[in-house]
Amino acid sequence: MSTLDGALKYASGHEAAFLAEYQEFLRIPSISTLPENKADVQRAAEWVAGQLKRLKMDHVELFPTGGHPILYGECLKAPGQPTVLVYGHYDVQPVDPVGEWESDPFGAEVRGDYIYARGASDMKGQIFAQLKAMESLLQAGAYPVNVKYLLEGEEEIGSVHLPEFIDAHRDLLRCDVVLNCDAGIHAPDQPAITYSLRGLAYFELEVRTAKRDLHSGLFGGSVRNPIHVLCELITGMHDTRGRVTLPGFYDKVRPLDDEERALLQQVPYTDTQWLELTGADMLYGEAGYSSIERIGARPTLDVNGIWGGFTGEGAKTVLPAKATAKLSTRLVADQDLHAVEGQLREYIQTHLPEGVQWELHVHSTGPGATMDRKSAFMQAAARALEEVFGVAPIYKREGGSVPVVAMLQQKLGVDSIMLGFALPDDGIHGPNEKQYLPNFYRGINTYIRFLSLLQVLEG
Amino acid sequence: MSTLDGALKYASGHEAAFLAEYQEFLRIPSISTLPENKADVQRAAEWVAGQLKRLKMDHVELFPTGGHPILYGECLKAPGQPTVLVYGHYDVQPVDPVGEWESDPFGAEVRGDYIYARGASDMKGQIFAQLKAMESLLQAGAYPVNVKYLLEGEEEIGSVHLPEFIDAHRDLLRCDVVLNCDAGIHAPDQPAITYSLRGLAYFELEVRTAKRDLHSGLFGGSVRNPIHVLCELITGMHDTRGRVTLPGFYDKVRPLDDEERALLQQVPYTDTQWLELTGADMLYGEAGYSSIERIGARPTLDVNGIWGGFTGEGAKTVLPAKATAKLSTRLVADQDLHAVEGQLREYIQTHLPEGVQWELHVHSTGPGATMDRKSAFMQAAARALEEVFGVAPIYKREGGSVPVVAMLQQKLGVDSIMLGFALPDDGIHGPNEKQYLPNFYRGINTYIRFLSLLQVLEG
Repeated sequence: MSTLDGALKYASGHEAAFLAEYQEFLRIPSISTLPENKADVQRAAEWVAGQLKRLKMDHVELFPTGGHPILYGECLKAPGQPTVLVYGHYDVQPVDPVGEWESDPFGAEVRGDYIYARGASDMKGQIFAQLKAMESLLQAGAYPVNVKYLLEGEEEIGSVHLPEFIDAHRDLLRCDVVLNCDAGIHAPDQPAITYSLRGLAYFELEVRTAKRDLHSGLFGGSVRNPIHVLCELITGMHDTRGRVTLPGFYDKVRPLDDEERALLQQVPYTDTQWLELTGADMLYGEAGYSSIERIGARPTLDVNGIWGGFTGEGAKTVLPAKATAKLSTRLVADQDLHAVEGQLREYIQTHLPEGVQWELHVHSTGPGATMDRKSAFMQAAARALEEVFGVAPIYKREGGSVPVVAMLQQKLGVDSIMLGFALPDDGIHGPNEKQYLPNFYRGINTYIRFLSLLQVLEG
Repeated sequence: MSTLDGALKYASGHEAAFLAEYQEFLRIPSISTLPENKADVQRAAEWVAGQLKRLKMDHVELFPTGGHPILYGECLKAPGQPTVLVYGHYDVQPVDPVGEWESDPFGAEVRGDYIYARGASDMKGQIFAQLKAMESLLQAGAYPVNVKYLLEGEEEIGSVHLPEFIDAHRDLLRCDVVLNCDAGIHAPDQPAITYSLRGLAYFELEVRTAKRDLHSGLFGGSVRNPIHVLCELITGMHDTRGRVTLPGFYDKVRPLDDEERALLQQVPYTDTQWLELTGADMLYGEAGYSSIERIGARPTLDVNGIWGGFTGEGAKTVLPAKATAKLSTRLVADQDLHAVEGQLREYIQTHLPEGVQWELHVHSTGPGATMDRKSAFMQAAARALEEVFGVAPIYKREGGSVPVVAMLQQKLGVDSIMLGFALPDDGIHGPNEKQYLPNFYRGINTYIRFLSLLQVLEG
């Protein structure tokens, strides 16, 4: 029996034990954002550290941070083989509205094919499947690659201490590729690999036309209304074909070639399904692109919030002094975050009427990330998925951002393989979060095969 | 000595007594909006009723309403002469922020030429000056015209019970002209007559593009953003010359003729003064009109409030499902309130993109009022002002609305002469409200002359 077969056999022989431990993990309410759960977050970190220690890793260490600890582990028993850095997080979101849960959010109740708990899908289920894959390999005496773990407890609160930790431990974290388990597939029987994520630059723009609010009767019609000014600015930011008009906005955008467009066409979303998924009344976007292309490969500029004047009940005849909008751009390769801020400032300066004061505040920026979908690592992931699911994965570009992917690309110079087994309807961040258990077990098998395939490819 | 001279002499001989009574009136905290002051409002009504009774009017009656009482009085001793309905209110605004008052808001302290109290200018001072003018005439045996009083206690809370009272007492209130004392002049030595007020139609517009809020990363660029849609609608509501684009919006607007434009040019406001008054950074409005013309004679459409999406601190990447704006139009003669609603609906229907849901709610509407500035009544007011101040009044169009003026025009078919002696910097509705006492006394004289001149004109 090969060590791979041994590992797969170990995994299939321990499903019940794995499930019991998974439940134990889920029952720790490691809500990173709530001060009253601080000890629980610590306990979750220690619980995972215990798992790593049981595997007799070469080195397991819990690093304190200003917030929740970062867990590092390494098992470097495959000289000459690639090193994989496994990224994950052991913290979870709050459980509000708790009244909408059908079972205790930290009860980890199994009903049918699902296990219900906060974190079941995002992402205790995924990281625990990877840990069990590692256990299966090691128990079978298989050391196909070197593995390092980087597990944080602050992903749900913006990974506040992760960048400085990475900067301070570049050597420790050195690797050939990242296995990011904070990911999902398309449908229960349709695996998928996300190879591209959009970046984000988030701004707040205030325009001001007067020192104080005025009475709209006494003065309306004789001075500028800042809401009108802001609306004009916003309106001018798109043309009639849905394209963003900031100067030079598309200059660096990497175009889709025919091969990639064909690939994205395989993502099985019809317009009807997209409408259902979004709850939108109609689809709309940049002319000449499909919905999947629009959210994956094209940059956007969206107003995320706007306010000004009187927003209470009833009628108040105020002519406000100022109006404000939150604006964000989703960026794709190879747009530059700082260049986009400059483009926005140039646009405002060009289009704002004379005599209007304005202020632009940058809330946050994070680059996008596009990975080489033809790399050996990506091919290994695809093959592992196909071997387990019996069907080849589709390739996806995601519209959202996973900041750690770009962070690791920038700081360590490595791509991430997004390989996880969440489903779009798992209800992450909401009530009754669940994980589809058949795919939890398939996930363990996929991780086993993925790590094994890396050895084959490189050995 | 004529009865006019007798009345003027009586007035000048009783200034100290009038001031003492005026203070007594001001010391009643008749705040109509506060439940805890309900008895005070009643007391103020009874106090004024006592004043009318002392004048031996033919009929004085306090009418209860669902809120604060309406005081009616009449003195019909001038057969064949016109009947003047005096309108005023005895209620006042709250006094917040009370810490900013330099003396007790209901202490009625005299400092230099001013008396300080809530209601000193708005409008106990004005209505009391008129009462003292009436007293002076009656004490001198002068009955130049017939006089009726309509004094409410709910002006500061929207005159809630006034319309039904007028409807129920049309005969009682029958008159030839209204003397509305809730008015002011331009500067201490520059009288003014307001002969036009704008109307108001206030709407709330909601546009909706989806059933629920979406993640702007996952879906941004593939569905419509309702904030963008709302901004486009708002932007399209004005053209580049500052004109409102609702279909037919200007069709019924009464144009300014050269004579009236020349008249309005006499309102001594420079651009610099207007900027100072508004605190605005620059003037802006419909091309081809001065600021005074814009606020007085031209209709407007202003967004008074807007909101949608995330409006808190920081950054949330939401693509909202809806966005809302409060919109109001200030209307001039001869625009029709209901027609404007229709124009707005037509505009929205024409310009809204396909597939966007919308809802328009009408908050309130009130017509404007333009009075014949050449009428005998208006001429009498102008002459009375010139005789007392030594300078002819300027004629003003106000940008705001005084709903009772339009209400009486509609329900009783009579114009109002806006004649009162407040000043723009009296601080009404704010702390340290004051009345300039020299003009309180001039006001008494002006009211005496005005009523007397009506007799001359019509007798």
